[in-house]
Amino acid sequence: MTTDHTLDALYEIVASRKGGDPEASYTAKLFAKGRKKIAQKVGEEAVEIAIASLVEGKAELISESADLLYHLTALWADCDVTPEDVWAELRQRFGTSGLDEKKSRKKKGEM
Amino acid sequence: MTTDHTLDALYEIVASRKGGDPEASYTAKLFAKGRKKIAQKVGEEAVEIAIASLVEGKAELISESADLLYHLTALWADCDVTPEDVWAELRQRFGTSGLDEKKSRKKKGEM
Amino acid sequence: MTTDHTLDALYEIVASRKGGDPEASYTAKLFAKGRKKIAQKVGEEAVEIAIASLVEGKAELISESADLLYHLTALWADCDVTPEDVWAELRQRFGTSGLDEKKSRKKKGEM
Amino acid sequence: MTTDHTLDALYEIVASRKGGDPEASYTAKLFAKGRKKIAQKVGEEAVEIAIASLVEGKAELISESADLLYHLTALWADCDVTPEDVWAELRQRFGTSGLDEKKSRKKKGEM
Repeated sequence: MTTDHTLDALYEIVASRKGGDPEASYTAKLFAKGRKKIAQKVGEEAVEIAIASLVEGKAELISESADLLYHLTALWADCDVTPEDVWAELRQRFGTSGLDEKKSRKKKGEM
Repeated sequence: MTTDHTLDALYEIVASRKGGDPEASYTAKLFAKGRKKIAQKVGEEAVEIAIASLVEGKAELISESADLLYHLTALWADCDVTPEDVWAELRQRFGTSGLDEKKSRKKKGEM
Repeated sequence: MTTDHTLDALYEIVASRKGGDPEASYTAKLFAKGRKKIAQKVGEEAVEIAIASLVEGKAELISESADLLYHLTALWADCDVTPEDVWAELRQRFGTSGLDEKKSRKKKGEM
Repeated sequence: MTTDHTLDALYEIVASRKGGDPEASYTAKLFAKGRKKIAQKVGEEAVEIAIASLVEGKAELISESADLLYHLTALWADCDVTPEDVWAELRQRFGTSGLDEKKSRKKKGEM
């Protein structure tokens, strides 16, 4: 991996296989199956994370988290969203003191 | 944020609120509700991501991804998993050529 | 409720509120929010069922199952699917001996 | 099927395979895998329903609904919950006029 952070590097690898030979890698095959399949995998892996966190051990939670992040980066790539888009959103929400964050979230009525 | 990468910095902020006053921040309140609630939120946000990717726009996918990653870091913190645990797992899986990756995944029978 | 089975009766009640005054009932309000919201609720309730079955008691599983079935009937009504459509599908799959069922499912490669 | 309603009959078939030979039917095999796996399938199928309702057709929604209900009855059987437990819960919630229902749900703060 060449970039600084693992997740950004993962995204680069994953995105580079978009449109590639489905026989050559699992990731190219995943893209070939289409967005519906990738979205479904994101949902499935999150269910597995929830279960792992409640009735399995740390190793399973780590493994399922890696599965989820892998499929999430694939979904981003398929939708032309970059990791930086998401980091920027997170910085905007959390790059402030706790109380400010709380207020801004309450306004959104979401988180 | 003090560390290099947004997601690691987010984790630090989130983890620092574990055990904090539930009235002072949404995150402390989330931890006070317990692991079951955090795990449930991870599952819910993933469903919203799936939906956003299929019938909404990039802005919604970015926003829901931020929601998911926020709750995922909270779940990690609650389970004493660190981001580095997950990055190490990802590096182990993907820090090789595409074909090697494909073979190692096939052996696992999972991804 | 007027029809024979609870779930069919629930569907009738729920479907009858489609297009109704959102102020008059939760169900009419749910339809007014649109299919995306109903679909999201189905996903959310299933996550809660999974969690309830693993770390809560029977009462919670029953309650979450009722929540899921309620939202599922709303999704059916919103998509002009009837319960009978689903019962017919189930009868077609399961109205045979165990071995036949196994074979037919294997052919589908799904269940 | 011998009982009146498809879903009750499905439950009877499914429950009868609990503890059976995993080689003899998919359902016995599912029980052999354990509750975690069944719960996971319920979550997965709900995600597929959500997706089917938004970007696929009625046939897919019907098929995925059958999948979900099948796995849900298996989860009930595994947890010693009966369909009647769930029907009773639904009758208690919905066997009243719309306004009463709305009020009682608001009290619960859930639906």
